[in-house]
Amino acid sequence: MSEISSGNVRKVEVVFSPVLFPVYFQNHDCTVVVIDIFRATSAICAAFESGIDSLVPVATLEEAIAFKKEGFLVGAERNAEVVEGFDFGNSPLTFRDTKYKDKSIVLTTTNGTRAVEMAKPASRVVIGAFTNFTALCDYIEQEDKDVILLCAGWKDRFNLEDTLFAGAVAQKISRNLRFSNLSDSTIASITMYDQAKGDLYGFLGESSHRKRLSRLNMEEDIIYCLTLDQSDIVPVLEGDMIVSNKK
Amino acid sequence: MSEISSGNVRKVEVVFSPVLFPVYFQNHDCTVVVIDIFRATSAICAAFESGIDSLVPVATLEEAIAFKKEGFLVGAERNAEVVEGFDFGNSPLTFRDTKYKDKSIVLTTTNGTRAVEMAKPASRVVIGAFTNFTALCDYIEQEDKDVILLCAGWKDRFNLEDTLFAGAVAQKISRNLRFSNLSDSTIASITMYDQAKGDLYGFLGESSHRKRLSRLNMEEDIIYCLTLDQSDIVPVLEGDMIVSNKK
Repeated sequence: MSEISSGNVRKVEVVFSPVLFPVYFQNHDCTVVVIDIFRATSAICAAFESGIDSLVPVATLEEAIAFKKEGFLVGAERNAEVVEGFDFGNSPLTFRDTKYKDKSIVLTTTNGTRAVEMAKPASRVVIGAFTNFTALCDYIEQEDKDVILLCAGWKDRFNLEDTLFAGAVAQKISRNLRFSNLSDSTIASITMYDQAKGDLYGFLGESSHRKRLSRLNMEEDIIYCLTLDQSDIVPVLEGDMIVSNKK
Repeated sequence: MSEISSGNVRKVEVVFSPVLFPVYFQNHDCTVVVIDIFRATSAICAAFESGIDSLVPVATLEEAIAFKKEGFLVGAERNAEVVEGFDFGNSPLTFRDTKYKDKSIVLTTTNGTRAVEMAKPASRVVIGAFTNFTALCDYIEQEDKDVILLCAGWKDRFNLEDTLFAGAVAQKISRNLRFSNLSDSTIASITMYDQAKGDLYGFLGESSHRKRLSRLNMEEDIIYCLTLDQSDIVPVLEGDMIVSNKK
């Protein structure tokens, strides 16, 4: 949808932490993009690209265990590592495997799945990552609603990688559509992205989470998570399940 | 204190909203800098520069009214305007008047005084603004504690002007002292300040609060609030009162 065909003036807001979400979430008829670049939302996009049928995000390990007892493939990550006894964590590279095709899987992570839970009252909730960037931006533009870019952060703290992605999306959709005055958090995110976009990996060299993952030998994950457009699927929340927008 | 003479590795954190303060406020033995550039903390610095003896920050209009009945000079601002019936609001230019000299005054504002209230459990709480930038940085360095730069924001939202100031302070003190790995919010603030420092006024041209103040014909205030080093006083909280560090 081009600027010419859209007469509406819409808002785009970047929320830097789940703790701030209630402050910004005034109009429930909006699209919330959940962002957890390292690594929940990148992993969810990878899982759909590998052909999963659906994904149930759960907030607690207790819920995850209950699904596991029912025979589901269940992933659980806490503090960047796979929780013992579960099938996988939140590494997107996990899904380079045909065994996930057509499966319904379950996932709980430190930050990302909690953010999905929080966003549920919104009229539309989608999953965003650098790996589905263009498809996501197209989807948001077609929805024609106010947009909240919800950064999952790290244990409620601001983080750089989610902010850079929010800035990338905000910049693209605010160029293409009539957005009203950008909020301060949106301006900040776009400014950050403009600084970083030539070398996201380098810019994040000092960030807390890249260092955390590097210590755990997850360089390959980091590089994957910062690579644009590996998938043209937008995972979308429907009820308590995430499904592909292509179905 | 130079890098050579300080062996301690300290932390500096930027908190983008009062809502996030509890997330970052783990070690109470720290210096919290309360930042509300437009305009509470700029006004407090101006009041001390004009010779007030002390300032009592109060969170509610009810408390402010009670002080007024006792004969105090009382300022009250809500939504950028002076509340009817009070002596002044939070315009720093108010204090270009000899009548405040040696007085104890009372102030309540939309964002700034609430942030002071929240910071009270910290071992040291100080007031920061561009107008006392150098004095503030010197003071923080001498304190030799972990530092939290608390942005008052606007009704719990992130704002640009407080972030830019936090970035300026973080950049200066992290160059001069041994700070451990900078947090993501600190890196973001410094990056923003680096982008903006050549023309703070211009950079803030699109910010929500500069536009809000411009609509209210407060350009002169904005320019004052963005001017470095108008005062060498650091207002410091002692009990329930703010006093000058020079007394």
